[in-house]
Amino acid sequence: MSAVITEQSQSDTTPVPEGATGIREGAFGHATGLSCRECGHGVELGPFYACPECFGPLEIAYDFPAITREEIEAGPANIWRYKALLPVPTDIEQSPNMEPGFTRLLKAHNLGRELGIDNLWVKDDSTNPTNSFKDRVVACALSAATEFGSKVFACPSTGNLANAVAAAGARAGIKTVVFIPSNLETPKQVNSAVFTESLVAVNGNYDDVNKLASEIAGEEEGWAFVNVNVRPYYAEGSKTLGYEIAEQLGWRLPDQVVIPVASGSQLTKVHKAFQELVKLGLVEDKPYKVFGAQAGGCSPVSAAYKAGVDAIRPVKPDTIAKSLAIGNPADGIYVLDICRETGGAVEDITDDEVREGIVLLARTEGIFTETAGGTTVGVLKKLVETGQLDTTLETVVINTGHGLKTLDAVSGIVGPTATIEPSYAAFVAAGIA
Amino acid sequence: MSAVITEQSQSDTTPVPEGATGIREGAFGHATGLSCRECGHGVELGPFYACPECFGPLEIAYDFPAITREEIEAGPANIWRYKALLPVPTDIEQSPNMEPGFTRLLKAHNLGRELGIDNLWVKDDSTNPTNSFKDRVVACALSAATEFGSKVFACPSTGNLANAVAAAGARAGIKTVVFIPSNLETPKQVNSAVFTESLVAVNGNYDDVNKLASEIAGEEEGWAFVNVNVRPYYAEGSKTLGYEIAEQLGWRLPDQVVIPVASGSQLTKVHKAFQELVKLGLVEDKPYKVFGAQAGGCSPVSAAYKAGVDAIRPVKPDTIAKSLAIGNPADGIYVLDICRETGGAVEDITDDEVREGIVLLARTEGIFTETAGGTTVGVLKKLVETGQLDTTLETVVINTGHGLKTLDAVSGIVGPTATIEPSYAAFVAAGIA
Ligand SMILES: Cc1ncc(COP(=O)(O)O)c(C=O)c1O
Ligand SMILES: Cc1ncc(COP(=O)(O)O)c(C=O)c1O
Ligand SMILES: [Zn+2]
Ligand SMILES: [Zn+2]
Repeated sequence: MSAVITEQSQSDTTPVPEGATGIREGAFGHATGLSCRECGHGVELGPFYACPECFGPLEIAYDFPAITREEIEAGPANIWRYKALLPVPTDIEQSPNMEPGFTRLLKAHNLGRELGIDNLWVKDDSTNPTNSFKDRVVACALSAATEFGSKVFACPSTGNLANAVAAAGARAGIKTVVFIPSNLETPKQVNSAVFTESLVAVNGNYDDVNKLASEIAGEEEGWAFVNVNVRPYYAEGSKTLGYEIAEQLGWRLPDQVVIPVASGSQLTKVHKAFQELVKLGLVEDKPYKVFGAQAGGCSPVSAAYKAGVDAIRPVKPDTIAKSLAIGNPADGIYVLDICRETGGAVEDITDDEVREGIVLLARTEGIFTETAGGTTVGVLKKLVETGQLDTTLETVVINTGHGLKTLDAVSGIVGPTATIEPSYAAFVAAGIA
Repeated sequence: MSAVITEQSQSDTTPVPEGATGIREGAFGHATGLSCRECGHGVELGPFYACPECFGPLEIAYDFPAITREEIEAGPANIWRYKALLPVPTDIEQSPNMEPGFTRLLKAHNLGRELGIDNLWVKDDSTNPTNSFKDRVVACALSAATEFGSKVFACPSTGNLANAVAAAGARAGIKTVVFIPSNLETPKQVNSAVFTESLVAVNGNYDDVNKLASEIAGEEEGWAFVNVNVRPYYAEGSKTLGYEIAEQLGWRLPDQVVIPVASGSQLTKVHKAFQELVKLGLVEDKPYKVFGAQAGGCSPVSAAYKAGVDAIRPVKPDTIAKSLAIGNPADGIYVLDICRETGGAVEDITDDEVREGIVLLARTEGIFTETAGGTTVGVLKKLVETGQLDTTLETVVINTGHGLKTLDAVSGIVGPTATIEPSYAAFVAAGIA
């Protein structure tokens, strides 16, 4: 359990669940309560995230309705087509929100050929409203924050979450305060500052920023930190990635899926989504393998996987994959469980391999990914090379973010091929034709 | 006519339409030929763009099938839902392409309130695969280039087109060569170079680059310059913006639409799309006004509009809105016609107003636009202030590109509010709560 609760001080500051008051009927759709992932203890719906019995993480419990593929397909081309499976009200589309999701699932013929994988797909979440998968989780967190009457919408972030929170808050007309490590990439800083009056740079790494956010969440009234005190609601948003992959494959689960890991929340929730689809009878049950991707400069989960141990040992991150630079991952132990149980693996690569992964995906499929995606594609390559991935099975790799946000990772290795004068003679002389 | 043909040398280099050979049955869907926009002269389908009689621009002519709203709605969540209205084959989804379009149409409550417009929408094309509306036109150009058996997929570009061509070409596995002004913004350079081995920087402005491209198109065999020799096919892609706006409004035309103008192609095609929907009985006929937006540092169309003249006088661009910096716009005279006939206008603003437009859209709707979108939003504001736009009518403003590509435009005016140590005391001292 020690890896789950990242803050010692949390036991003092966690609001004690006392019975949620003032929550309107249907505010959380078919969610029935919160349930401890570790001990199963049940808690009423509210801005709670840690089990009062054992401090394990709380998750949403549901009483799902019968739902058909056709009902889902008749919904909007965004995550709200799955609203019946999320902790949101039935009229969620009416609240100003970013309308994220239903991003492209692209058949990756070229990348597959390059890597020797017969049947490869890229789920491209870089075209979300603020260009990462974080718009999905933030949309669910915003709904919860609104239902709880929060006055501030906040987060500690490795960059993408800050972008998503600041943008969604602006559109919803709620005050936002976002906290980032002060050494964050410039594009991610500007891409938050343009939306909010309160971008707070913190001298420290993400784990320091996260610790500060937990303290503030404990001290201040009415602050909804999306990934701290409304984390159970937030995390459910990542399930939509899993739902979409299955629906876009024609209501079928893939054989293998490769997912980047920072806190580990996304990987955990994609797996949960697949399980739910099976239970709801929306897809056929079948085995599938889940693989986690980390950068070597911050690979506490991969290290534990390789060492064959259960405990995750926190690290001090040092990698260009800053969006994945969480040294003390809250859901790391669940990632280990899932990857082991399904027959997958967790792998890591060097920063140079991250850069190569970015260029490889761009040159083969026309997708410009950030360092997190470079990590995932690079790990996919390594999984093939090391024989850990079965190249004959249908495989989905998730691209979670956009290359324009981590431009410096490749601006030194790609650029104009030639600079010429504006004449046909100069063109011919440059030998481009 | 002088404004239409931008190259003197064009008459020497235009391939003479001789009857298209080797084009497979159905390669261009329901397109029946090319037709001169000026004199109506008909030409067979082929890689032709200028009328052999009068050098006017050629456009696609169709024999549209009867088509219903339901048939369109049953299509994919991308531009191919409208494939019956585009010069593409019925199996277009099978060719590797970027699957652009069907971007969000967002109700803009906050921006509307800020500007005093009762009923305002933002059509947000910044979430396209390479983050501008250019993915739409390039998808149609790619199909044409493929059908013509072209060996190089190329363009002169103010930046976004280069990104779209390089990416789409990579995914399709066709050699790409993209030409840009050498002073282009770094993000737009990297966002092309990551996809292609041939990014050619040209010492000159866009009009110089365009002239060079026309020369190369005349000299080299098998080069498909998307916006030069396959321009008729390319331009049709912008119609999908108009189709989507109408469909997403519930199969209804808006009362007013505000569109940025560089070459003027997009504005012209959105108008054409509305006309087609009326003719096909997919929407009711009604009056609507079309407004064009330019930056003051490159406003040849706005200048002609204000002077009440028909001829567009080319200018040397000097503005931060580089994607709109076309001093000699090919479709400028058609923009003038449309804006005048529909009761709209063409307006321009200063670079500072462009910057303000970017921040205004971000702070109100959570959308980070590039300088082109800042121009469009800023012009929308000016149209209200000058009484040219009716604030009681339903209005759509098109955001055509992404702020991460023109970061420098705002990186000087937004940034972290505070930089603090990672402690609650430092947080309190900074006065953020
Ligand atoms: C682009 C990107 N991909 C993946 C992740 C990993 O997310 P998680 O914390 O859910 O493991 C993050 C987290 O910030 C991210 O920004
Ligand atoms: C972002 C953006 N918006 C608008 C335009 C204008 O397009 P058009 O040349 O069709 O007028 C461009 C052209 O490059 C562009 O890049
Ligand atoms: Zn418990
Ligand atoms: Zn003619």
